[in-house]
Amino acid sequence: MKCTRCKAKAEVHLRAHNAGFCRPCYLEYFRRQVERAIARERMFTTEERLLVAVSGGKDSLALWDVLAELGYHTTGLYLGLGIGEYSDGSRAKVEAFAASRSLPLVVRSLSEEGPGLAVPDVATATRRAPCAACGAMKRHFFDAAAHEGDFDVLLTGHNLDDEAARLLGNVLRWQRDHLARQRPVLAPTHPKFVRKVKPLYLLSEYETAVYAFMRRIDYVVEECPNAEGATQLVYKDALNRLEAASPGTKLAFVKEFVRSAQPLFAERERDAPGDCQACGMPAYGALCSFCTLVREVEAKRARRAALAGLGV
Amino acid sequence: MKCTRCKAKAEVHLRAHNAGFCRPCYLEYFRRQVERAIARERMFTTEERLLVAVSGGKDSLALWDVLAELGYHTTGLYLGLGIGEYSDGSRAKVEAFAASRSLPLVVRSLSEEGPGLAVPDVATATRRAPCAACGAMKRHFFDAAAHEGDFDVLLTGHNLDDEAARLLGNVLRWQRDHLARQRPVLAPTHPKFVRKVKPLYLLSEYETAVYAFMRRIDYVVEECPNAEGATQLVYKDALNRLEAASPGTKLAFVKEFVRSAQPLFAERERDAPGDCQACGMPAYGALCSFCTLVREVEAKRARRAALAGLGV
Repeated sequence: MKCTRCKAKAEVHLRAHNAGFCRPCYLEYFRRQVERAIARERMFTTEERLLVAVSGGKDSLALWDVLAELGYHTTGLYLGLGIGEYSDGSRAKVEAFAASRSLPLVVRSLSEEGPGLAVPDVATATRRAPCAACGAMKRHFFDAAAHEGDFDVLLTGHNLDDEAARLLGNVLRWQRDHLARQRPVLAPTHPKFVRKVKPLYLLSEYETAVYAFMRRIDYVVEECPNAEGATQLVYKDALNRLEAASPGTKLAFVKEFVRSAQPLFAERERDAPGDCQACGMPAYGALCSFCTLVREVEAKRARRAALAGLGV
Repeated sequence: MKCTRCKAKAEVHLRAHNAGFCRPCYLEYFRRQVERAIARERMFTTEERLLVAVSGGKDSLALWDVLAELGYHTTGLYLGLGIGEYSDGSRAKVEAFAASRSLPLVVRSLSEEGPGLAVPDVATATRRAPCAACGAMKRHFFDAAAHEGDFDVLLTGHNLDDEAARLLGNVLRWQRDHLARQRPVLAPTHPKFVRKVKPLYLLSEYETAVYAFMRRIDYVVEECPNAEGATQLVYKDALNRLEAASPGTKLAFVKEFVRSAQPLFAERERDAPGDCQACGMPAYGALCSFCTLVREVEAKRARRAALAGLGV
């Protein structure tokens, strides 16, 4: 196959786009896709201060890399989740990436934020699935870091496969509240929220992996050990089969949703959040999801301490 | 496992419902599910005249059987599609079923309606996928038979698996026109349309197969030879995998769509159809889909006859 742009020998074949690219043209293609998404969805400008949440995986590091290349003002945000070796390894990759490009990086760690706040501990104490606990904790610390650091925008590296899997899950149960808020740009609904955007939402996992490979980004290859058997992977598998039978399925699913169906759901979006009584961050009830988790962890620790005091 | 209703030994296990049934209780369960769908969606009454489209497969014969048992005024409608042995076999099954229960049956046949109108011939002449040609022809003859026979309602045996697959296909491309009209009861939008209903829309393929087996209904077991590789089967396979990972997925997908999401799409339903200039049946353009196909078939035949006349 020949490169669709320059007719040299193609190194990558994108069935969903019915196109092939040589290495320089692929990098150009990838950058343009990101630029177009930023422009079309009015994600942010070169004047704004961007906080990029980076996990050490290919998607978030590819995002940070391409934005730095394009001249945006980026700062990385790494949150240590306390998931054993997986977390240690990912932190090292992120720090090495930032150092090699002289990019500013904020590092925080759940276990340093309070006792028992590492993801496995919270999951056990609150009897929640690790992914649910992790999601709530990440959202809280990402939002807080963006607000405290006075950033204009919070960015995540969610790719097309992530968005398609999330959309499929929301659609299979017609979760209208979730569908009302699944879009590539979320305007802040509270003074302590900043705009949240996903510039890679139309680029597949394969496309970000190729970009990271070609740019020699050293990223964490292992999946999070908690992800095995997660529902998201069942959805991704189903979508991969549909994609194989009809290339372009995922792209059409997400793109057309955002264009024509999402507005129908967004009309019924729930009210703006109030203030969490504990931490002051946005909350839909008296407490935000994070403080709800923290209370449960504290209650568990208090019970355990009381039992230990009784010599049980 | 024990029967959920009577505690006898269960013969059927329905994971989606987390229930098991012995034979008599299963038949009772199935009838009640149909009765509830009829009542909840206000499908029809015992006073109305029902035309049941029957293919000879398990779903449509199970539907006809249960409605006759429940005391509704039913007439069967069989349309011969001209798909070789498959059609011959299915006609024989339908005729035997109707005769054994002394139920009235209307039989029509595409090849007797006009030259070159059998499904394989139309598909070839119009270069359409057989399933697309077949769908358009069936809709036309079903609508026409219901109108001409002065029936109140036209019923089809679409089951939960059919509806879930169709819904997934519509959702993957966000076909809003199709989503606006996918519901278990369609009110007539034209004087020559009658109400169209699908009483089995929440009963799975497995459930109708068990019902047909227990009621000793002799049905066509073979799939239509054209169905192999059809997109619907790819969707059904994906949904079966999702169902295996999380029983109840298909039921929630279709039921919750009809309850809460379908109304959002229905608000934007397209205008009512006009009259087809050729046959007078409802049409969204100058010609209805059926007459469009017929014109294409006639044009092809005319070209062939002209070539034959020239000795080519």
